[in-house]
Amino acid sequence: MTPVTYDNESTGKFNFINLNTGEKEIPFGEYLFQRILDCGTKSVFGVPGDFNLPLLEYLYEPQLLEQGLRWIGNCNELNAAYAADGYSRYSNKIGCLITTYGVGELSAMNGIAGAFAENTKVLHIVGVARSTDSRCKDFKNRNLHHLVPQLKDSNFLGPNHKIYYEMVKDKICCSAEYLEDIHDACNQVDKVITDIYKYSKPGYIFVPADFVNMTVPTTNLLKKPTFTMENCIVSNNEQDIINITNTILDMLYQSNTPAIIGDVLTDRYSGKELINRLINETHIWNFASVNGKSIIDETNQTYMGLYNGEEGPTAVKERFLQCDLILNFGVDINEINQGHYSFSYKPGCKLIELHPTYIRFSTPDNGKEQIFKGINFIHILKSIVESIDVGQLTYQYPISVKPFCTEELNFKHDSNSEIITQTLIQNKFIDYLNPGDVVVCETGSVQFAMRDLVLPNQVKYISQGFFLSIGMALPAALGVGIAMQDFPRSHISNNCESAISESYTPRLILLEGDGAAQMTIQELTSMIRFNVPIEIMLWNNNGYTIERAILGPTRTYNDVMQWDWTKLLEAFGDFGKKETKSCTLETPIQLIEKMAQLKNGQKDKMIELIEVKLQTLDYPKQLRHMVESAKVKSAGLFNK
Amino acid sequence: MTPVTYDNESTGKFNFINLNTGEKEIPFGEYLFQRILDCGTKSVFGVPGDFNLPLLEYLYEPQLLEQGLRWIGNCNELNAAYAADGYSRYSNKIGCLITTYGVGELSAMNGIAGAFAENTKVLHIVGVARSTDSRCKDFKNRNLHHLVPQLKDSNFLGPNHKIYYEMVKDKICCSAEYLEDIHDACNQVDKVITDIYKYSKPGYIFVPADFVNMTVPTTNLLKKPTFTMENCIVSNNEQDIINITNTILDMLYQSNTPAIIGDVLTDRYSGKELINRLINETHIWNFASVNGKSIIDETNQTYMGLYNGEEGPTAVKERFLQCDLILNFGVDINEINQGHYSFSYKPGCKLIELHPTYIRFSTPDNGKEQIFKGINFIHILKSIVESIDVGQLTYQYPISVKPFCTEELNFKHDSNSEIITQTLIQNKFIDYLNPGDVVVCETGSVQFAMRDLVLPNQVKYISQGFFLSIGMALPAALGVGIAMQDFPRSHISNNCESAISESYTPRLILLEGDGAAQMTIQELTSMIRFNVPIEIMLWNNNGYTIERAILGPTRTYNDVMQWDWTKLLEAFGDFGKKETKSCTLETPIQLIEKMAQLKNGQKDKMIELIEVKLQTLDYPKQLRHMVESAKVKSAGLFNK
Repeated sequence: MTPVTYDNESTGKFNFINLNTGEKEIPFGEYLFQRILDCGTKSVFGVPGDFNLPLLEYLYEPQLLEQGLRWIGNCNELNAAYAADGYSRYSNKIGCLITTYGVGELSAMNGIAGAFAENTKVLHIVGVARSTDSRCKDFKNRNLHHLVPQLKDSNFLGPNHKIYYEMVKDKICCSAEYLEDIHDACNQVDKVITDIYKYSKPGYIFVPADFVNMTVPTTNLLKKPTFTMENCIVSNNEQDIINITNTILDMLYQSNTPAIIGDVLTDRYSGKELINRLINETHIWNFASVNGKSIIDETNQTYMGLYNGEEGPTAVKERFLQCDLILNFGVDINEINQGHYSFSYKPGCKLIELHPTYIRFSTPDNGKEQIFKGINFIHILKSIVESIDVGQLTYQYPISVKPFCTEELNFKHDSNSEIITQTLIQNKFIDYLNPGDVVVCETGSVQFAMRDLVLPNQVKYISQGFFLSIGMALPAALGVGIAMQDFPRSHISNNCESAISESYTPRLILLEGDGAAQMTIQELTSMIRFNVPIEIMLWNNNGYTIERAILGPTRTYNDVMQWDWTKLLEAFGDFGKKETKSCTLETPIQLIEKMAQLKNGQKDKMIELIEVKLQTLDYPKQLRHMVESAKVKSAGLFNK
Repeated sequence: MTPVTYDNESTGKFNFINLNTGEKEIPFGEYLFQRILDCGTKSVFGVPGDFNLPLLEYLYEPQLLEQGLRWIGNCNELNAAYAADGYSRYSNKIGCLITTYGVGELSAMNGIAGAFAENTKVLHIVGVARSTDSRCKDFKNRNLHHLVPQLKDSNFLGPNHKIYYEMVKDKICCSAEYLEDIHDACNQVDKVITDIYKYSKPGYIFVPADFVNMTVPTTNLLKKPTFTMENCIVSNNEQDIINITNTILDMLYQSNTPAIIGDVLTDRYSGKELINRLINETHIWNFASVNGKSIIDETNQTYMGLYNGEEGPTAVKERFLQCDLILNFGVDINEINQGHYSFSYKPGCKLIELHPTYIRFSTPDNGKEQIFKGINFIHILKSIVESIDVGQLTYQYPISVKPFCTEELNFKHDSNSEIITQTLIQNKFIDYLNPGDVVVCETGSVQFAMRDLVLPNQVKYISQGFFLSIGMALPAALGVGIAMQDFPRSHISNNCESAISESYTPRLILLEGDGAAQMTIQELTSMIRFNVPIEIMLWNNNGYTIERAILGPTRTYNDVMQWDWTKLLEAFGDFGKKETKSCTLETPIQLIEKMAQLKNGQKDKMIELIEVKLQTLDYPKQLRHMVESAKVKSAGLFNK
């Protein structure tokens, strides 16, 4: 990379007073990081580059460092985006990354698109050309490295400095501001942050390299000192909220077998505590969703399983079909989350879908519906919790039905088997966890194995269940680990019936596949660098087994190289094996023993990487089931 | 990743006859790969994914395999794009990669943008949703995984299936076709390929998963059996070519001190052989450019150095300023290639810029110019070579001026030094090369050290000199190595005065930095997997030294983790160290000895990785020079 010409002098102090207005001013670079801190975010991910260096200089301002600001340098920009996404998924705050013009921001794009598809709050700051250059009509000041030239007449026309901004705006972000006038810059920053909370989607700020040292007023900092979900989604339709709440309460009071689904947006809009309180106080039957797994505490006394229509266990579907009223909180509708649209309902069942932008009442039987737009469900959820009269609830749930338990999945594991199978993992995995642990699960075959397992109390489960970009989980786990450092135990509720002992340090566990791991493997080094304690279960099934389940089970295109996984952490910087330990497990007894040790805290080193050998064509039955049902759906289309 | 439902039955034979037309038909998947082969391309890079699996099945058709088709599976899609770019840079054919919808194609985007900025011929095939799904208005068939939903009303509106296509079209490719009607598909494929040759830029084909098994006529295959640069840029203005050629020849005959610059597009449009023939037959003084380095054989008797205005060596500038006529073949104008627009000319000098879309005659002194548009310079170059009358050339070059040689760079190396320095590298590097070797150089500080060195006869030098995306070179070197397998010695000209012995196998040498290497390191495994012989010089200067030269020389944001580089190849699959060897060098004598051994073919293993320890703040003087001159240019703008 080549220079955009900055001075590297020491920065001095920032006590500028604007002589015209008498206002205190600070450099824009400081303003930007202050705003990140004002969101509650402390760690910023990214990679340095020619156009963001002047901004990165502000990372070292004492007044920002005092507030906990720190830089987490990643190996590459895609990994940085994944890590920022993970940071947000754990903390529910904004995950931030900084990249440079073109080469950096484009590399991160798939991570941002994933955050968009999965409703994660990510702020992507891109250092771009000086405003003097992008405003200038002179070819010589416009035609910069990292910038794609025009297709035609590129030797005469300067490039479009906003071309990368135009690629992402209105497509993979909820808000994008390319700063062009320093006088608007503060408001633009605040707008993007507010939009990120409002939509729970990624936003972009494109920062010209010459803006960071210019001074800006501190007015906004005084006017709105912090950004929270609450102050970014303020409601101005109180009466509608009361009316809708009352309607829902009436329906609940009349229902014999109501049920709650805790879907993904419940967590994204900070409704996890509320929904669990509602469940614990009312004992309404409740179901998880694929994308919302672990929002509802699965050990509650009326947890009925993860509902995914025809693609989930029959035992769960049978319970769901007994419900006459469904409240689907934070609903997000897509082919994965809705089991390829195979949800079915009890005849006459009423369905209420609660979403950040609408509340929808319908009767699936006859298609009748009523939609109230412009209301964020989180206000309704809060209002329900505050005003529900438990005495008026009169359930007639069948007494024969018990809460869903993992045993019902009926995994038939051959206890004499000498090999480790997906079935064995499904049988033993829950035992491996302690209440309060955090699990990050890679896209792949094991992800399907995890779906239906009933998680222990207050376990947080993080997985990219819809966008399904393999390789995401490893850097995301770094981001989760960094967030666990910044906000220890923040996923644990004190209001929960069975609290997690203060003395217990929640573990971070990454479930990773071999093919996926090869995509982003270098980010292991950042776990060592930034002291992230983690247990990595590397399920090695010799390639892209999830693709083998779909097509080409023995094709070479589904193969990857065999690696010596146990040598990686040493190569990636743990020279004397001081901080890490790696091993390979091949038999059930080895896996069961290792799991028991780790569960009991018998962990020698900060990082343990456990390679677990699996059979190449061993798919979990949930994956097989989904592939088969999807094939039936499109029978005849693909008879090659 | 989850399924898009294909059958995985065996494929059978493809002798379809359309009963209506009597024409032979073949499956579209076969057609597409046949067209790739028809470009001369044999190896295809990429990563499997749900939406490209049915296409990948056609990789195994015997009639395609017979023609040399093979799949090079990469660790991730960005690496695949870089590798395809490298494949094209070496072979001057189309580098092809296949990715899947969204997650795959977006990850590759930075690689494609780089190919666009640097005029490389890359074909990016993206497997997308079935046409039946993208045409369907039903939400349930539209709302697929890997696809970003709409920002608003995403639970009601299906996503835009062409959203990723819209992101790249007219921005980072010269041609993009999203196939929607199987009847147009063959022509669309042919159009993209033709455009790639015509513009020497990347193109995209978006292939619906259900198209690959549909049959298409073979008409196009018969009508145009091959794609070559020549048949894609056919000229229809013969008289203009003759007129312009004659004008140029007249100017050459009148010139006392003419000069040729061999710029990057000369190679991209297959003009390397022609320009060297012109030089060898006429002995016109000649200069390389940054982006066109190694196009002109630098051992020719009138090579005068790499001209980069004020950012190159004074000795080269002095020669350049003696020339009264400059023919700049294949010119590409940008801040790097033009030394931040610091080119200067002898008073009264005439400048002829020859470009794929125009020929420009100008007098830099007074700004007078005449432009002829719509003519590809390669036709002019060919015409000049064919019609020049050497007897009419009457040079008056100063006899005192000798061809440029590396010694003139005057690297003052302290021979007693115990540490390896950039200066030492510049002093010793040329000796390390043999004629005919291939060097791939990473973006970074060493790239600046390489610029001015006079390369041995027929060495091919490959580097991303303008877009400057760090991490590109390692996967690009994989692509180069694969291309060297597909087209052995194709960079070596038999017409050259000093031919390379048939018995010599050209070496592939990668010059890599530590910070850059960490970005894309996993692709080392593919070098082992696909048996790519390579020597990797890993210049370890403890982080992003090129950025330290610009700003933050001691800042932590420019740090990376220290790795044990010598353990990587074993971890990445060379279990018994059968194919690879790694070492660390710390002293000048070690480096000089190792270079001498490798030069002489004393290489034990297929792959050698040599970690060379450098000082953190040791910049080559060319980098220091450029940073300083760029800082002068913008003095006062960045006084933080």
